[in-house]
Amino acid sequence: MRIIGIDPGYAIVGVGVVDYVKNKFYPVKYGAVDTPAGTPFEERLRMIYDTVSEVIAQTKPECMSIERLYFNNNQKTAIDVAEARGVILLAAIKAGIPIYEYTPLQIKQSLVGYGRAEKHQVQIMVRDTLRLESVPKPDDTADALAAAICHGYSHGSLLSKVIKETK
Amino acid sequence: MRIIGIDPGYAIVGVGVVDYVKNKFYPVKYGAVDTPAGTPFEERLRMIYDTVSEVIAQTKPECMSIERLYFNNNQKTAIDVAEARGVILLAAIKAGIPIYEYTPLQIKQSLVGYGRAEKHQVQIMVRDTLRLESVPKPDDTADALAAAICHGYSHGSLLSKVIKETK
Repeated sequence: MRIIGIDPGYAIVGVGVVDYVKNKFYPVKYGAVDTPAGTPFEERLRMIYDTVSEVIAQTKPECMSIERLYFNNNQKTAIDVAEARGVILLAAIKAGIPIYEYTPLQIKQSLVGYGRAEKHQVQIMVRDTLRLESVPKPDDTADALAAAICHGYSHGSLLSKVIKETK
Repeated sequence: MRIIGIDPGYAIVGVGVVDYVKNKFYPVKYGAVDTPAGTPFEERLRMIYDTVSEVIAQTKPECMSIERLYFNNNQKTAIDVAEARGVILLAAIKAGIPIYEYTPLQIKQSLVGYGRAEKHQVQIMVRDTLRLESVPKPDDTADALAAAICHGYSHGSLLSKVIKETK
């Protein structure tokens, strides 16, 4: 199963595509849409939509796994992130692939086995799970890969569950 | 000047296109993207993006005028509205038209001359400004037309200001 993981944002969007085959994860393509400081918001939305659409077209994932948003103290930032997240969802919708959402807690739980895990612990698990030499940078890229891995595990465990129940 | 006004939402999006010529407003096309209850969110985003893009392609406005969002008490709703607003902005961006944002207060001030005006007063002003027989329904459509009219007035007054200053 090929999964595109997304860490949503408006200045930086983490993107990580992985293959999940026989309980092993393989990195396919990962990086970040990094819009320079001072880029007009409209241009950011355009770059985010075009880049995510392009990565989907190139790597042909079967689904998107994306972090769920929560409000924080900064209203303006949260609205901007949600607007950017809207165009990321549209890229998946236009490509006809299903979208799965996970909370940061679910992602940590899935990778580290502990929902309150430190950011650094998640990054180390991303590195080791994908057998990379170092933690992918920026953090947004590692978080996107974490979202993709989380979906692989969740999907796998759901399948196992179904198999167990039907036996 | 032709303006597309938008009242953002995810279940209902108001859309109103008006012409502003020699201090008079003329309705061009107005209505709402109304997604039935129970429509999946992804389908809503797709319908909103496609419909707004289609109206822009048909009516060829020079700019978009859209209400600015504020957080309310319902976090989930606010995030959903912001995500929908993201795909509305993308429709304008992809069509290459500039986007202008106005707060509800600015829109009321512009139409009624009083920022704390009642919703009904704004609707009556929309009806009268466009010389319509009745208030456009649903409310979202009237609000979208109000956003468009607000931009016409603001743009006009800015132009007047520039002309006065350069004389």
